[in-house]
Amino acid sequence: MFQSRLLGELVEALRCLPGVGSKGAQRMAFHLLERDPEGARRLSEKLIQAVERIAHCSLCRNLSENQVCDICASGHRDRSLVCVVETPADVAAIEHATGFNGLYFVLMGHLSPLDGIGPEELELERLEARLDEGAVSELILATNPTVEGEATAHYISEMARAREIRATRIAHGVPLGGELGYVDSGTLSHAMAGRTNL
Amino acid sequence: MFQSRLLGELVEALRCLPGVGSKGAQRMAFHLLERDPEGARRLSEKLIQAVERIAHCSLCRNLSENQVCDICASGHRDRSLVCVVETPADVAAIEHATGFNGLYFVLMGHLSPLDGIGPEELELERLEARLDEGAVSELILATNPTVEGEATAHYISEMARAREIRATRIAHGVPLGGELGYVDSGTLSHAMAGRTNL
Repeated sequence: MFQSRLLGELVEALRCLPGVGSKGAQRMAFHLLERDPEGARRLSEKLIQAVERIAHCSLCRNLSENQVCDICASGHRDRSLVCVVETPADVAAIEHATGFNGLYFVLMGHLSPLDGIGPEELELERLEARLDEGAVSELILATNPTVEGEATAHYISEMARAREIRATRIAHGVPLGGELGYVDSGTLSHAMAGRTNL
Repeated sequence: MFQSRLLGELVEALRCLPGVGSKGAQRMAFHLLERDPEGARRLSEKLIQAVERIAHCSLCRNLSENQVCDICASGHRDRSLVCVVETPADVAAIEHATGFNGLYFVLMGHLSPLDGIGPEELELERLEARLDEGAVSELILATNPTVEGEATAHYISEMARAREIRATRIAHGVPLGGELGYVDSGTLSHAMAGRTNL
């Protein structure tokens, strides 16, 4: 399709990005070549650096270029609190929005027997080992409010209960600024059932 | 925002892509690291190769990794026909859709005095030099049907007229498969004014 073989290869390579189709990849390639070769160079460099150096933290499984991530290595975090999330993006969101000062455990997914993802794939034995150490007093379950996320939270709460560690779940309900009329019925009935004393 | 400095740099670098914001860049970075490190490696390699080796064909200004692009170098193309387009994407589209077998001249833009883009920026002297050689018998103007595209077509047609070379404009009108009721009024009045004998 393209006169330049290399251009065709670049367009094809750009399609590995999620949400990028052939027209979008073509637009990206022309943009980089015509208007932003410096950006393309930097992107090329960062891609290869990231792929070669970023791995999982050996303690919390978050993405990190060090063997132990900055949060786990920090001396300023409350080591008795561990927040369990599904993805590194969730860690970023919680760090950005809340004052949470404990540690994390990143599942890199959720239990999903149909997809062959069980406790081994999520490396839950690492979480168990950490719970067994005795320093953790509360496990905050912040998995997504989906069927799989809820099942995963339930499974992990049982692990905590067996060790007499407190397990909590983040609150789910009507989002701030939301209007009741526009909130889906599942969320609304959840909010009603989970009402708290004023 | 990210615990990994390198991850933050990768997300920032991905934002040089057109149409990619911070959330999209984050999603791309996580996707590449988690699911497609091979794609990221290939993309990194192709980006640097493309930026370092793709330049403009010295004859038609199309993107090419050779000094003269494959179309200009081909012995099977009709050298008396030259089609003038705005971008390399237009060349790809015409090659893909039509049986056009002549050569191209890629303006890499259009005349736009307000943006400081005049005949020099489009390197129209190269086109003039080619017209002066005398081999070209028809210049097909396939710039976009925008104000700037029309002005550019008009300007170039004057160059052809001065050398007594035939200048033609691709047809504009109702697209095939389009319904008249859904076609914008500018296109429809253009189609009516440009009606041909049956």
